[in-house]
Amino acid sequence: MHRVRFRDPAGSVRTGEWRDGELRFGGDSYAPEEVELLAPTEPTKVVCVGLNYADHAAERNKDVPTRPLLFLKPPNTVASHGDTITLPAGKERIDHEAELGVVIGEQCRNVAEEDAMDVVDGFTCVNDISNRDDQDLEQNWVRGKAFDNSCPLGPVVASPENVPEDARVQLRVNGEVRQESSRDQFIFSVPELIAEITTYLTLEPGDVVITGTPSGVAPLEDGDTVEVEIEGIGTLEHDVRIP
Amino acid sequence: MHRVRFRDPAGSVRTGEWRDGELRFGGDSYAPEEVELLAPTEPTKVVCVGLNYADHAAERNKDVPTRPLLFLKPPNTVASHGDTITLPAGKERIDHEAELGVVIGEQCRNVAEEDAMDVVDGFTCVNDISNRDDQDLEQNWVRGKAFDNSCPLGPVVASPENVPEDARVQLRVNGEVRQESSRDQFIFSVPELIAEITTYLTLEPGDVVITGTPSGVAPLEDGDTVEVEIEGIGTLEHDVRIP
Repeated sequence: MHRVRFRDPAGSVRTGEWRDGELRFGGDSYAPEEVELLAPTEPTKVVCVGLNYADHAAERNKDVPTRPLLFLKPPNTVASHGDTITLPAGKERIDHEAELGVVIGEQCRNVAEEDAMDVVDGFTCVNDISNRDDQDLEQNWVRGKAFDNSCPLGPVVASPENVPEDARVQLRVNGEVRQESSRDQFIFSVPELIAEITTYLTLEPGDVVITGTPSGVAPLEDGDTVEVEIEGIGTLEHDVRIP
Repeated sequence: MHRVRFRDPAGSVRTGEWRDGELRFGGDSYAPEEVELLAPTEPTKVVCVGLNYADHAAERNKDVPTRPLLFLKPPNTVASHGDTITLPAGKERIDHEAELGVVIGEQCRNVAEEDAMDVVDGFTCVNDISNRDDQDLEQNWVRGKAFDNSCPLGPVVASPENVPEDARVQLRVNGEVRQESSRDQFIFSVPELIAEITTYLTLEPGDVVITGTPSGVAPLEDGDTVEVEIEGIGTLEHDVRIP
């Protein structure tokens, strides 16, 4: 099952299924270009994990953490498949970061590792866009990671059984492969992350945990088209505008 | 005007006024003990400012920042007047921090300092509860500042004209004064903070900006009663449970 949210041609917001190249809701079906795709989930928060692939920690000259490095993206960061997102002007370096997003299905706290997959609704593709100019100066990455549009996600929430344990994660800019890795390279697994986060924070239905990026991060430029493709989910695509 | 949210004796959630010691809505009035007080706003995010009083920066052995030190508290952190809040077990030091909260009245971005008070709905009292064990180890203060119940706020949203420029901020634990200062001691003013934050993040109606704490922070213990009193707003009171 690939769940999708969209605004239909009459303007109504629908939660339906993306199947066989069509979006379906209530007996109607649409071609993707007939509707406006919306983010497939509306999180109250996105809990983010830094440095969860050894090769990316190395390229950022950081040690691999001994417990998950956490940070936050609030709802203002969310953007959708098909959006042209405007990024902050006047920065030297705003990077893409391809990530697997874990969408939470129920309110939960103090979840044990062995029960963690029970609270997972599914997976989505995320670009954790990062303003290095400010991130590298800040204690907490707010200007660096929580600015508007810094969390495009979608196009669908894929049920867990659709996404293999070694699902390939790939990011392309203007068709050229920039990042390529696999979910089985995580330092901390999805159950380990959910257990650690819910020791401190209640997760709500629709919240998203994003799981870190592999090596290959690089600056975005005005006019770029970004695609994040994850095996079993699909391809999130968005354009970039830098004023 | 002191706006309040409460659950009335019939179980309905009401947004009314706290006037002359009574809560009023739709022609009915209630004594505070007849109703359940709720947080007077439901933020999509709380944007927090660290080290905004020179005396607190000194007690934490930190330099006064050259631009606002920002961090985030998501909605899971919000607690209400009258709550007994449960804090993480097994920590050496979880501190209180009395703060003035600025409640935003309209969606806004790129707000100039001179226009900033136009987007302010009012002010509230906040306790920015801080788990130092983890805060002092983390890059981003998630375990340290974003845990459940770490942001009691209330009891009302007071209109700006009720709160003097030099409003007194006082925090008491079990009746003993622990923190006392005034809003006019801020390093960055409310308009400066709103201008800086909205350079990067859209603020939504109901979002809260909390403005830093003065000196006197100290550990909370199981069974404590905390009061945050701010001149022109009122007194936020909550109890503490540490399992």
